Amino acid sequence: MKIISKNTVPQGFKFGGIHCGIKKKRKDLGLIYSETPALATGLFTVNKMQAAPIKLCKRNIKNKIQAVIANSGNANCAVRNGFKDALLLTDLIAQELKIKRGDILSASTGIIGVPLPMDKIKKGIPFLIKQLKEDSDDFAQAILTTDKVCKQIAVELNITGRKVVINGIAKGSGMISPNMATMLCFLATDIDIDKRLLMSCLKEAVQNSFNQITVDGEMSTNDTVLCLANGEAGNKRLQATSYKLQVKKTENKDLEKFQEALNYIALYLAKEIVKDGEGATKIIEVEVKGAKKKIDAEKIACHIANSNLIKTMFYGESTNYGRIAAAVGSSGVDLNLTDIYLVSDKNRVKIFEKGYFLSADEKVLKKILGKKEIKIVVDLKKGDFSKRILTCDLSEEYVRINAEY
Amino acid sequence: MKIISKNTVPQGFKFGGIHCGIKKKRKDLGLIYSETPALATGLFTVNKMQAAPIKLCKRNIKNKIQAVIANSGNANCAVRNGFKDALLLTDLIAQELKIKRGDILSASTGIIGVPLPMDKIKKGIPFLIKQLKEDSDDFAQAILTTDKVCKQIAVELNITGRKVVINGIAKGSGMISPNMATMLCFLATDIDIDKRLLMSCLKEAVQNSFNQITVDGEMSTNDTVLCLANGEAGNKRLQATSYKLQVKKTENKDLEKFQEALNYIALYLAKEIVKDGEGATKIIEVEVKGAKKKIDAEKIACHIANSNLIKTMFYGESTNYGRIAAAVGSSGVDLNLTDIYLVSDKNRVKIFEKGYFLSADEKVLKKILGKKEIKIVVDLKKGDFSKRILTCDLSEEYVRINAEY
Repeated sequence: MKIISKNTVPQGFKFGGIHCGIKKKRKDLGLIYSETPALATGLFTVNKMQAAPIKLCKRNIKNKIQAVIANSGNANCAVRNGFKDALLLTDLIAQELKIKRGDILSASTGIIGVPLPMDKIKKGIPFLIKQLKEDSDDFAQAILTTDKVCKQIAVELNITGRKVVINGIAKGSGMISPNMATMLCFLATDIDIDKRLLMSCLKEAVQNSFNQITVDGEMSTNDTVLCLANGEAGNKRLQATSYKLQVKKTENKDLEKFQEALNYIALYLAKEIVKDGEGATKIIEVEVKGAKKKIDAEKIACHIANSNLIKTMFYGESTNYGRIAAAVGSSGVDLNLTDIYLVSDKNRVKIFEKGYFLSADEKVLKKILGKKEIKIVVDLKKGDFSKRILTCDLSEEYVRINAEY
Repeated sequence: MKIISKNTVPQGFKFGGIHCGIKKKRKDLGLIYSETPALATGLFTVNKMQAAPIKLCKRNIKNKIQAVIANSGNANCAVRNGFKDALLLTDLIAQELKIKRGDILSASTGIIGVPLPMDKIKKGIPFLIKQLKEDSDDFAQAILTTDKVCKQIAVELNITGRKVVINGIAKGSGMISPNMATMLCFLATDIDIDKRLLMSCLKEAVQNSFNQITVDGEMSTNDTVLCLANGEAGNKRLQATSYKLQVKKTENKDLEKFQEALNYIALYLAKEIVKDGEGATKIIEVEVKGAKKKIDAEKIACHIANSNLIKTMFYGESTNYGRIAAAVGSSGVDLNLTDIYLVSDKNRVKIFEKGYFLSADEKVLKKILGKKEIKIVVDLKKGDFSKRILTCDLSEEYVRINAEY
């Protein structure tokens, strides 16, 4: 696997992005187009309140897909004509591109409860289509909301002797929580692959990336991860030779390579989302291990990762570590065996042992707290289950952004 | 029931508070003393990590109590000698007051994981005892941490022809969550009452007050509510005439009066805690009704009350109401029948009906959002269960306080 220029598009794909007026200034409407109909697979929010584009995706994703229309600035969620508007949008794209409206997916992000400004979008679409090109930069910009930076990556790998490209683009940046975030992610590749296999690969990649990040514990109504594969690379099709996909993967070196690349991209984008979390100044990795039950590990990791007290502690580089132990205790798990460590790239300090705080070296602790990436390890020493979550600190900036948004 | 001067102490009680040096400047050590041994009852945090004074209270509370020693600035929690220090503290008080060390309760609030500065406290105790008087102001100040104001109230009522006084003092103000907060509350009364009855009254009062407030969803290691009754009022003792305490209460007008007074005090103090929540500028009341199960109502109410996105929305007086519906949806409950209202003292606007946002009058909504006290009503229309929680908004101030603390 080779990391290549981040705006590289796979063969047969074109990307575009314009400002049509949903937002005041920045780009707000993006399009991905594949000349060859592509296999598509996706994962969506489990919030019971689902935005109209999610419903549309769920309806169309069984088809071979040629286009994905995405907008920022408006979530098209919980409005009475939301689904009608989403359909109309695909009609407009279908007419212009001369493709079937059923072969189009859509995604939206932004404010909830306000109708899409369809007039503005309608006027913008011809320009958007004219602007399609073999460069994903404009699309990556068009899906941002409060994100400060574009999240984009492209990799190249060799599958059965042919060059395969995968392009990944995502946006964050508040409402980020396990089981997806207010995040959109678009993966496009020219690999030729079996559809069931593609879904399995996507699930694994998302499980180990987007489902392990949190910014504020909120679950969005619009979370979407889409993966399109149009087969233009011309590789020997990756097939599922057995129903047990997991077993197969390690038996097929090419499939393993593809999975690794997809995992890499998803984790890279997930980390980029956390780094660019609203107001974030630090990345915090929470690892809870030694739990008796999986649910214990998850509960404690989530609690720590979403604790305002702990997040502000890291922001202030304050040594009020008691908040970590208090968060563990409030989950209802006994701390009589628990050890807690603070870890940076260069240092690892045990701050809590079997229920009590240790008088650790303050100088080393201050060094760790001064870092941009910090890890908390909670070892319950009760069993074998563990959970890892990435989060960020909480600053005044988060409040400002969300008070004004 | 009559509300009287808030620093009024019940007969036979004395209160004191001094600065002994645990904190830099403000008062940090307080004492309540009852000449007559008093019945005592208490409720404590359910966090598995419990501070040493909680363990001490649980051991001594079966005894008749003559003193409560409380400090701020240090939680005496998760330190190896914590319990030994808490015991030593009661020894010192016992010696000076010439009472039994088993007849003393204690409470602490402040930083976790740092040993109590016993030397400073030891030096302070003689001054603290000299300073005891029939005025609770100094004690109310001595238990504050990041609180901006004292939380104090006193009421007078007539029980079987005798004047009974109840004095209530509390502190907040971060780490406030249902099942108690980082809150300490001290209720002292001269009523003569059966002990089992006193516990029942306290439980009811706490259930409808401190257990319905949240500031940041954190559960403290030190939460304590204590209630002391020394019988000095000389009323005819309130007795439990049947095992079914609930039934009895309405049959006994005097008991009903006492319960009402206790409820009033607890709710008053709980509201004061929310109002003074770290960085709070508004009080938000969340009411979820029409739930099929009790747990649904509780989950949704807690989620809304602890949502950073919703709390910053109220802080910014922004109209991004979608966040409320998204929070309901993320709890896994269907919104197809749900109505949501925003309510102030003068206005009530339906913003969401059966799964969709209504285009409500923006002017009226802005008026509601401009208020200091706002209510959200979520009516799921699925069943008969409901839950009410008080919370506050989230401002930059919260982050500043907790980054520096």
